[in-house]
Amino acid sequence: MEHIVTTQHNTGMKFTSDIDNFSILMDSSENGLPGGPSPKKLMLASLAGCTGIDVVSILTKMQVSYSEFNITTIARLTTEHPKIYDNIKIIYKVKVDEINHQKFKRAVDLSIEKYCGVMAMYRHFAKIETEIVFL
Amino acid sequence: MEHIVTTQHNTGMKFTSDIDNFSILMDSSENGLPGGPSPKKLMLASLAGCTGIDVVSILTKMQVSYSEFNITTIARLTTEHPKIYDNIKIIYKVKVDEINHQKFKRAVDLSIEKYCGVMAMYRHFAKIETEIVFL
Repeated sequence: MEHIVTTQHNTGMKFTSDIDNFSILMDSSENGLPGGPSPKKLMLASLAGCTGIDVVSILTKMQVSYSEFNITTIARLTTEHPKIYDNIKIIYKVKVDEINHQKFKRAVDLSIEKYCGVMAMYRHFAKIETEIVFL
Repeated sequence: MEHIVTTQHNTGMKFTSDIDNFSILMDSSENGLPGGPSPKKLMLASLAGCTGIDVVSILTKMQVSYSEFNITTIARLTTEHPKIYDNIKIIYKVKVDEINHQKFKRAVDLSIEKYCGVMAMYRHFAKIETEIVFL
């Protein structure tokens, strides 16, 4: 199976990607205030979205309810070109009944170990640390 | 230097990432028509945006003019969980005077070999092929 994305140059440093029926504008912050997120930081949204969708999908199957679920991704950037993320911390925060804490941990583990393709790609170039905070 | 992105669960499988002052909505296509791009495909926008911004930045320094610059990223997905992109083709299309074709190639090479951090990360898990098409 193939995924295809087309990306068009606009003005300045701006680029627009067409992903299925959606458009994403990206920009560089090199020349002052950007008009969209930086391409590199989009990769952190991608990581959080991928593992987040896994966790929600698994919790739904487990019939576990939760609220205020959010994910913080913190990436360390190397200093020399090409600058890559070599160290990632992912913090899962959620409000869930104490009786279901283990199930939530199990859902996160399944995403980390089995399902999240984006995380599997990251693991090839970065050290990944994860943490769960119950609110 | 650290990059931090926070990602909030909405309804269903939807997640919103806050990247600096910008919001990106992501969704799964698992349950019918999604409300935003898939997290994994966002990684392809990230790749195209990263190398595109490099090329535009270098062409500007070279004082080379161009038009209709776009980038197609084609990624092959593996079949077993976790599904990753193991093969990538990047096609750069541009309209540029023939006298400047070599300069355009040089700008692309500099991005590929030196500047594009996203491509450097991809190289750890995927085979990457690139092509330039002069319109």
